[in-house]
Amino acid sequence: MLLRSLLFVPANRERFVAKVATLRPDAVILDLEDSIPADQKEAARSQARAALAHLAEAPFSRLIRVNSLASGLARADIRAVACPHLDGIVLPKAESAEQLREANMLLAQAEARAGLSLGHVRLIPILETVRGVLRAEALAAAGPRIVAVVFGAEDYTLDVGGIRTREGLEVLYARAHVVAAARAARVAVIDTPWTDLADQDGLWQEARLARQLGFSGKLCIHPSQIEPIHRAFTPTAEEVEAARRVVETADEAARQGRGSVALDGRMLDAPIVGQARRLLAQAEAIGRRDEAR
Amino acid sequence: MLLRSLLFVPANRERFVAKVATLRPDAVILDLEDSIPADQKEAARSQARAALAHLAEAPFSRLIRVNSLASGLARADIRAVACPHLDGIVLPKAESAEQLREANMLLAQAEARAGLSLGHVRLIPILETVRGVLRAEALAAAGPRIVAVVFGAEDYTLDVGGIRTREGLEVLYARAHVVAAARAARVAVIDTPWTDLADQDGLWQEARLARQLGFSGKLCIHPSQIEPIHRAFTPTAEEVEAARRVVETADEAARQGRGSVALDGRMLDAPIVGQARRLLAQAEAIGRRDEAR
Amino acid sequence: MLLRSLLFVPANRERFVAKVATLRPDAVILDLEDSIPADQKEAARSQARAALAHLAEAPFSRLIRVNSLASGLARADIRAVACPHLDGIVLPKAESAEQLREANMLLAQAEARAGLSLGHVRLIPILETVRGVLRAEALAAAGPRIVAVVFGAEDYTLDVGGIRTREGLEVLYARAHVVAAARAARVAVIDTPWTDLADQDGLWQEARLARQLGFSGKLCIHPSQIEPIHRAFTPTAEEVEAARRVVETADEAARQGRGSVALDGRMLDAPIVGQARRLLAQAEAIGRRDEAR
Repeated sequence: MLLRSLLFVPANRERFVAKVATLRPDAVILDLEDSIPADQKEAARSQARAALAHLAEAPFSRLIRVNSLASGLARADIRAVACPHLDGIVLPKAESAEQLREANMLLAQAEARAGLSLGHVRLIPILETVRGVLRAEALAAAGPRIVAVVFGAEDYTLDVGGIRTREGLEVLYARAHVVAAARAARVAVIDTPWTDLADQDGLWQEARLARQLGFSGKLCIHPSQIEPIHRAFTPTAEEVEAARRVVETADEAARQGRGSVALDGRMLDAPIVGQARRLLAQAEAIGRRDEAR
Repeated sequence: MLLRSLLFVPANRERFVAKVATLRPDAVILDLEDSIPADQKEAARSQARAALAHLAEAPFSRLIRVNSLASGLARADIRAVACPHLDGIVLPKAESAEQLREANMLLAQAEARAGLSLGHVRLIPILETVRGVLRAEALAAAGPRIVAVVFGAEDYTLDVGGIRTREGLEVLYARAHVVAAARAARVAVIDTPWTDLADQDGLWQEARLARQLGFSGKLCIHPSQIEPIHRAFTPTAEEVEAARRVVETADEAARQGRGSVALDGRMLDAPIVGQARRLLAQAEAIGRRDEAR
Repeated sequence: MLLRSLLFVPANRERFVAKVATLRPDAVILDLEDSIPADQKEAARSQARAALAHLAEAPFSRLIRVNSLASGLARADIRAVACPHLDGIVLPKAESAEQLREANMLLAQAEARAGLSLGHVRLIPILETVRGVLRAEALAAAGPRIVAVVFGAEDYTLDVGGIRTREGLEVLYARAHVVAAARAARVAVIDTPWTDLADQDGLWQEARLARQLGFSGKLCIHPSQIEPIHRAFTPTAEEVEAARRVVETADEAARQGRGSVALDGRMLDAPIVGQARRLLAQAEAIGRRDEAR
């Protein structure tokens, strides 16, 4: 599951849903939570279900952000949208492994009730409270449905009582901790959305920092963010070229039976060669994907 | 309990205690620990008790920093200062939830022995050793008397074997971790003092960074630090105005039944509106407080 | 055990081993892991053992980096190099306290089998995976043989899926967390090697940052790195002079029975005096060591 860009769309905006079918994010998240006013939740559930069917052939993953388990709305949300077109549930304000087990159970119940097969449906918790971030390790490892965790910086900053800045020093610890926890559980890890649509440079800076820290991708709140985010999470031509030289030099040294080798004055220790190989594999996977579309 | 500025005063300096009565920090901490030489501890206890009575009508919280439990002095400290004028005990070098339970028990014993009612007395642990910082979650959640935790950067740096710098990169991890732990337990969190009295600009920078990271306030070691710290932890006029626009725009959108809305190109996601509401509430609380004085 | 510089040498390069005898790092690490191709491991073990004997009189600690326990090679490595000339085992990719117990057991078995006394042999785990870093506290405290832990940034970045940069923001969290965990267990903590041999300025910057964060020393991958690393981890003349003034001023105040004192406008709180004393002690220990050589 390549997850560089995950585009939010309010589940009740039919025009947006229609538009999304023409776009190429790696995933679309139909939202039932924050973008849906309380009195429109029920209608939005049906609309979300219809949208899943509408997007059944689209070349991206179809996810639903349900309401948090603490809201009391998640049960009805999951029941309403559980269907074969659904690829995953995004669970906001996740704070404990129990919540993820509960979400899992709700999927199992929907499966039993409707005679559906939902084994493929993934769970993606959003860690956006201090408790969620502090419990990141347990949350990321809470079962086989989990393929990724998301870090939500705005809610985290609200919960912590801090001030969001463009540079983001206030969430560096939380970002790095969530990345480590996700990677320890061998799942992907997605960064918070960039909310200032007018500041494309800020988006680019933050997306590159996210990639540097180990994130796999970034939430999008507008179609205009897809392309810059794909670019930020795709190795550049220079990076690919540099990685190729590293791998070739190391391979040549290995053929000659040498265990250590330098390139341009830099020692090519095993993990550096590993980083280069990973970068090449990533570039290739993205290339194949872009071709397939 | 508004805790932006907590001013340290050596408990044995009568002139300082008299001076403090004319000042307006949010809290005064009469110190029995580091500023009192070993051979003056006993005298300082009586002086601290007298100072509590002297400051009984002052418009700030009256706290006592006792010696650490590991020092063997804390029991006598707490016994000496437990009285109705005492608002809280500041416990340095806190390293375990057991220590906080012990402090709690010492307060209960003082209560029983003297027939006092000390239910209002709060506990504020200082996390200033690596063990304290690593156990921050358990310490912040160790009982209902705890209303805040303090991060002590100088002792932490000593314990860790690092070098203190003006920029403070060496304590960024510890600061962010303590903030998260405190907020998970829903208590306030107070930053280390700025020790260079000649560098007011440094104080201002560090106090703003502390606020950005989620701290509620900062220790003061000199009266001249109160005003800049209050200013740093008080929303500016520009921040209030910006927050007001965010809230108004969001409220207007809600009246129109729209779930998502932008302002100046920035998406007003729910937590962003939440941050704005919190800032306005904070500004109002501080305004009410300043008026009451 | 003064551990500022720990120089890696492939165990199978006799010329390098001979050269190393003329150098003055604080420790030499004969490598059996990454710098030894898979088909040369057996030969390298004997060479490592011979090198230990060859370096028996050298004025530095003799360590061996064995292969990771997960590789299946560590058992034979430890068996081969356990001898009285061995000062310690460096265990890469350490991820659990069990692994350290296993390494400990392998040393005990070698001791029993050969009738050797290996009580002096130390264990130094390298934390270079996300699991290792997240378990740092347990690893650093996993028994009396452990005198230090090492942070490995290249492998960590590979595991986390991030990008290594010169500035290193991507590993700041991991660095600070490993330092805290090591210091909580009262063991030394060694920073990752600087791999770009052509960039001496970068080495210097990173080594100073490491010292600032609380690291005791840094791995070296080339003899040219020893001197700059020693310099970076040795207090400068200015630092020593400043510390001396702090200590003298504080001592004078103590003689006068004053509990708090300022110097050049800076309050000399107890931990600040403690930092100064530590710096002087460190400078003196390094001076004695340099003299002894």
